[in-house]
Amino acid sequence: MQQSAIPSTDRTFETPSWVQDAVFYQIFPDRFAKSLAVPKPANLEDWDTPPTIHGYKGGDLLGVVEHLDYLQDLGVNAIYFCPVFKSTANHRYHTYDYYQIDPILGGNEAFAQLLAAAHRRSIRVILDGVFNHCGRGFFQFNSILENGSSSPYLDWFTIYSWPLSPYGPGGHAPGYSAWWNDPALPKFNTQTEAVREYLWGVGRHWIEQGVDGWRLDVPNEIDDDTFWREFRRRVKSANSDAYIVGEIWEDASRWLQGDQFDAVMNYPFTKACLGFFGTWHGLDAGTIQGTGLHSVDPLSAERFQQVLEGLLGRYPWKATLAQLNLLDSHDTARFLTMACGDETALRLAMLFQMTFPGAPCTYYGDEIGMAGGATVEEARAGFVWDQSKWNTPLHDHLKGCIALRHAHPVLRGGQYQSLFAGDGVYAFLRRLGDDLALVALNACDTERSIEVAVSGDTDPQSVRSAWGSPAFTAHDGMISSWRIAARSGSVLTARAFDR
Amino acid sequence: MQQSAIPSTDRTFETPSWVQDAVFYQIFPDRFAKSLAVPKPANLEDWDTPPTIHGYKGGDLLGVVEHLDYLQDLGVNAIYFCPVFKSTANHRYHTYDYYQIDPILGGNEAFAQLLAAAHRRSIRVILDGVFNHCGRGFFQFNSILENGSSSPYLDWFTIYSWPLSPYGPGGHAPGYSAWWNDPALPKFNTQTEAVREYLWGVGRHWIEQGVDGWRLDVPNEIDDDTFWREFRRRVKSANSDAYIVGEIWEDASRWLQGDQFDAVMNYPFTKACLGFFGTWHGLDAGTIQGTGLHSVDPLSAERFQQVLEGLLGRYPWKATLAQLNLLDSHDTARFLTMACGDETALRLAMLFQMTFPGAPCTYYGDEIGMAGGATVEEARAGFVWDQSKWNTPLHDHLKGCIALRHAHPVLRGGQYQSLFAGDGVYAFLRRLGDDLALVALNACDTERSIEVAVSGDTDPQSVRSAWGSPAFTAHDGMISSWRIAARSGSVLTARAFDR
Repeated sequence: MQQSAIPSTDRTFETPSWVQDAVFYQIFPDRFAKSLAVPKPANLEDWDTPPTIHGYKGGDLLGVVEHLDYLQDLGVNAIYFCPVFKSTANHRYHTYDYYQIDPILGGNEAFAQLLAAAHRRSIRVILDGVFNHCGRGFFQFNSILENGSSSPYLDWFTIYSWPLSPYGPGGHAPGYSAWWNDPALPKFNTQTEAVREYLWGVGRHWIEQGVDGWRLDVPNEIDDDTFWREFRRRVKSANSDAYIVGEIWEDASRWLQGDQFDAVMNYPFTKACLGFFGTWHGLDAGTIQGTGLHSVDPLSAERFQQVLEGLLGRYPWKATLAQLNLLDSHDTARFLTMACGDETALRLAMLFQMTFPGAPCTYYGDEIGMAGGATVEEARAGFVWDQSKWNTPLHDHLKGCIALRHAHPVLRGGQYQSLFAGDGVYAFLRRLGDDLALVALNACDTERSIEVAVSGDTDPQSVRSAWGSPAFTAHDGMISSWRIAARSGSVLTARAFDR
Repeated sequence: MQQSAIPSTDRTFETPSWVQDAVFYQIFPDRFAKSLAVPKPANLEDWDTPPTIHGYKGGDLLGVVEHLDYLQDLGVNAIYFCPVFKSTANHRYHTYDYYQIDPILGGNEAFAQLLAAAHRRSIRVILDGVFNHCGRGFFQFNSILENGSSSPYLDWFTIYSWPLSPYGPGGHAPGYSAWWNDPALPKFNTQTEAVREYLWGVGRHWIEQGVDGWRLDVPNEIDDDTFWREFRRRVKSANSDAYIVGEIWEDASRWLQGDQFDAVMNYPFTKACLGFFGTWHGLDAGTIQGTGLHSVDPLSAERFQQVLEGLLGRYPWKATLAQLNLLDSHDTARFLTMACGDETALRLAMLFQMTFPGAPCTYYGDEIGMAGGATVEEARAGFVWDQSKWNTPLHDHLKGCIALRHAHPVLRGGQYQSLFAGDGVYAFLRRLGDDLALVALNACDTERSIEVAVSGDTDPQSVRSAWGSPAFTAHDGMISSWRIAARSGSVLTARAFDR
């Protein structure tokens, strides 16, 4: 029974304890909700029309405030905001001013209101920090465009050749270092001390304003551990409980040694969910290929177990408990779309997400059945506030899964151990002290009955169904005839004997 | 005696009473003084090297604070700052953010310190408001560059054709309305209500921050009286004593009816001074041609009188008392240079400026003999703080002229009347209640002796020399044998008989 147990402690590495209890909701600010209280510029797209690459719908932060009831009812207690700083892109990844909240979002005042309102409800807020590059309108870069080599800020960027061609024809070399050579995204020269201090200062400033952490955009592009170590130091010295989660799509061991990030966006988790829950009914490989996920390997239950155990063993346990476990994001298609519209795949993944170590994160709108994703824009549609258009059962399913997680600390902090993998079923145990939870997920189209061994100190009388099928038989050291309905999951709880 | 008197009141038009008592000093912020207390970017030009079109020297506002003693010692009690808002041009006429003071100047904090320090010394501060156009980096314009016709702010500017070519080759049409078709200066569409509100809001904001007024850059380009009427209303409702002075180079009657500006930059005064005081020893027509003055007509004393009386009769008297009387500016060559280096021309003009109705304004560095001007950059050199390089007698001359103005309210608020014009000498009377001042200016290379009639109630016993030659004979209704040294001036004061 111990062969695949994941240790509960392994290194000295502190991550914020609140994260394992957090249920995140990712908001794309232009598209979640729009308040009448925020004045808007004239040229906005209709909320309900398909998003376009450059158009704005005018979502704002007071709109979020007005829907905190909705989020709280869903069980959300943390929000990860895609960028909110002043920017001239609808996604705001092209930062114009790191010290200003975008005026269309309501500016710094609306943000202060949001933060206060969220904190009153014990909802934490983390921001998207885009520190590798900025937009062409960023002050110090604009200074170089305007003044050439006379710019006081010449050392803020890396210039290859004059004159620069920031808005030249497509495919041209812009003459400066840029993210993926995209002229729209000049890359900071983080070797320059003033740039480092500037970015560290931003990192600290918003924590001082009350923000609970940073999601870091493409932090691997700042290929400099000393930069991120000092970033961590500045942030944690402002608030030792601040959460630092990096956008690292692959192995993130380099950044999870305790000196840089607390966790990363767990895209390998995403792929595993798609690979196991989604493959059964088929994945939309074409759509997936157009996203940052690129491709997803189909996973049998046995392979799913191997992948998960690889993931769980990869990082310090404290980092594992702080991972941001997401099913999709603004950078992918929506899970439902990648799974060819198969709602059962999404439901299974949601349940798994809420029972797995790490902080689950729901991309806005997934819970009401929003689809989208042949292009990134499609997955960034305006949230549908007309409830007649919701997939209400799906919404209630997620709400139930979240409630399950909140109700059982063992699902958040408990040790992890695989119990069963085969015939399209994967089951695992979580254990926190004397509390146990057993989770079984059946990816097949038919009901399965499984038998799993549990440790000898499990009290058979204490086994209860917490989710799904209540059909099982508890013996000493064993659960048998545990029936898991087709394309669904079951969660049992149990207690160890008093010792 | 009454034929050429300028009436002391003529229309209902209130201008701030402090302006007639103000002695302005115009500061080009990048070039006046540099404090060690303001952190600076790396790539700055050496202070003492000739200025370049795009280079920065790193002057700042704490540098100004550190030299308020200097300005106060000179007699200055008002500062007109060339633009201080965040900008990517060394002159900062290309505004990037109207709500931020440029970081190189020390940012909003340094400005608040400056304003407090200046006000503690009863030194007023007016700012340069560039509301017709902005820089290419300005947020709403950058939004159009980034998003094209999808920009939320599309109606903030006037687009002629897509795609825009903001940084294209020289001489190209940028595709949008710009000041003098300069791609670097996109012109606001002030027909758009949001733009009007934005600019009016800026106008009011800085007055609320404590600024004492606005110098308006090229306000004639916003060809819309309703815009400026509302601008005045917003500004004056924040502070009825705020000063609004427009950059209008020619006849400004349109704006000086009481509903728009208080005054204008008195470039006709500049030309008159060059034409009379400068012509005697020759003007540098080539240099003048390269400036906004374009050309200067030589003026005899008689013609000088006509020009001045034309000027004095042109606007309401309250506006005349509020004119910004300048000898040069950041938009011209320096007076000394236009006058072919003839210091006597500058000294005469300084004395005249300090005895004439309207607020005198000294362009930084003129007082220590700084020259420059074949290009605009030359007239924007770093202030020479090494006193061994000063023209100290010239400095002391200006300081004396300013002290003269401060000592005699009649020179600031008194009615104006020409007394004599001929043979290179022009003399005039100022009268405030029972106080009189007689000013004679001799542009010739030889001493002149003149006789002027004064009003019958002038007490001959009260006539005193306040400046220059004390050689005169006072009679009832007449000053005779009033000797005015070559290339200099004389000021007498007198009292009317008690009535």
